[in-house]
Amino acid sequence: MSSRLIDRITAGDTTAVARAISKVEGGASDSSDLMKQIFSRTGRALIVGGKSSLVDKLAAFYRKQGERVGIIAVDPSSPFSGGAILGDRIRMQTLSLDKGVFIRSMATRGQLGGLARATVEAVAILDAAGYEKILVETVGVGQDEIEIAKAADVCVVVLVPGMGDDVQTMKAGIMEIGDVLVINKADRDGVLRTEKELEGLLSLGVRTDQWQPPIVKTVAIENRGIEELADAIDRARESQKSAPDSNERRQAIARWRILELLRERLLSEALHSDSTSEKLDRLAAEVANKKRDPYSAIEELIAK
Amino acid sequence: MSSRLIDRITAGDTTAVARAISKVEGGASDSSDLMKQIFSRTGRALIVGGKSSLVDKLAAFYRKQGERVGIIAVDPSSPFSGGAILGDRIRMQTLSLDKGVFIRSMATRGQLGGLARATVEAVAILDAAGYEKILVETVGVGQDEIEIAKAADVCVVVLVPGMGDDVQTMKAGIMEIGDVLVINKADRDGVLRTEKELEGLLSLGVRTDQWQPPIVKTVAIENRGIEELADAIDRARESQKSAPDSNERRQAIARWRILELLRERLLSEALHSDSTSEKLDRLAAEVANKKRDPYSAIEELIAK
Repeated sequence: MSSRLIDRITAGDTTAVARAISKVEGGASDSSDLMKQIFSRTGRALIVGGKSSLVDKLAAFYRKQGERVGIIAVDPSSPFSGGAILGDRIRMQTLSLDKGVFIRSMATRGQLGGLARATVEAVAILDAAGYEKILVETVGVGQDEIEIAKAADVCVVVLVPGMGDDVQTMKAGIMEIGDVLVINKADRDGVLRTEKELEGLLSLGVRTDQWQPPIVKTVAIENRGIEELADAIDRARESQKSAPDSNERRQAIARWRILELLRERLLSEALHSDSTSEKLDRLAAEVANKKRDPYSAIEELIAK
Repeated sequence: MSSRLIDRITAGDTTAVARAISKVEGGASDSSDLMKQIFSRTGRALIVGGKSSLVDKLAAFYRKQGERVGIIAVDPSSPFSGGAILGDRIRMQTLSLDKGVFIRSMATRGQLGGLARATVEAVAILDAAGYEKILVETVGVGQDEIEIAKAADVCVVVLVPGMGDDVQTMKAGIMEIGDVLVINKADRDGVLRTEKELEGLLSLGVRTDQWQPPIVKTVAIENRGIEELADAIDRARESQKSAPDSNERRQAIARWRILELLRERLLSEALHSDSTSEKLDRLAAEVANKKRDPYSAIEELIAK
């Protein structure tokens, strides 16, 4: 069955793509076999990641160039409520009518974690399906988002003028993951100041490669600066390929992917039986009522 | 040794507190025993979490009331570079000279993850050491941050006027974790609009408890609104204690803590030998060069 699915995916069948992504998101038992086949068919797409309110404009630009575009929107959601809350994707509606665009929201899977792992796998599926550009939209600068963004080829960080303190707050994200920096709403006051602040941050120079992230100014609602952004993304990608540490970077990403998979596999094995699941409920109640500490709780869970 | 350390912690010895936090952060082998002893001594502090640029003002306010304050600043950082980059804590300098204030930055530990786990444990240590107020400062609205914030008693979400789209983007964070909403820089234009947007979000009402999160306006640099904020935090805390779902909430937090510990313990056991670590390096290189897929790599890692 998987071999037929893989054939349909590589033929670009969107129903098959959607089904494959559901499999990896849901942690289906045959998803690992599927992903082994997917993996050897990846490596052609340009993967653009990062927090972005420009995804729809960039996607439209790539479409005009005749390229197929995949969009993965990562919705942070709570481990407690379970559901994805964000997803205010009205601006995506026009795009979603276009057969050359595949849009998918990924939400957290709950107790096994795995959002980052599932997102990276969804990207691989789109890559194997022949989407030339894959845009991974994340929100915020949390650990998951940073990991997802770093697994992309090029990461775009979007700021708006007048963020002031927030530029400082986002320093980590900007310095770590920003291959291309964008100041959107660049028709507003304060653009120059934000630009100076960014240049100040960049001049601290913690990057190990030679790439100097360009600062692109855009006005998304007027479609201004989008071509410059696409151009900056291409240049970042080219520079990266020839960077002296490109092999190290790929190894670090590979290592992280292996560990993510391992983490999830181990937890899934530890929790797979119904009795463990009942035990977990009981232990959680005991810890909540302070009848037990969480440390002895896991000792009981692990003990066979 | 741990029993002496626990005595020094409960006596409020800051050197012992710092050492204990380093132990849990570094995953020291005896940290689990220490935490078992800590756990039974927790439950007195008020833990305030969330993204906040008001932490220093709030801390100063609590100090004036004669309370001891612990501050944990969570620094997101990359799993690749390893270091904490943020930490622009100049505004904390005055506070740090005050013996009644304990300030600590927590950074990511790298391959085992565990930032959220270590942060929650650091909070427990400060609680056991008798700090009456514990402020956990996070950045962004990533999964880690949401989990950390939800493990706090009261979560404060800070916005500034004119965020426009960003209020939408932060919807998840606001709706999920905000027990108290703050509009800082409330002397700027656009306060009313931001307030209306927040009220609009709140009126959608996804909360399961009866608490209606208040919107507090502050001007941090002029110290305005801080008392109102502290008051709103107290009210949120009181409401929570009597909420019909308070037991469920505590169980969900307990369950999450157990799973975090379990996840880390399993990974640590799987990777603990030198040979596994060498194997991981080799497999990461093979995956990076597409000589192997990550799925068969973990099968080799797990196989004994």
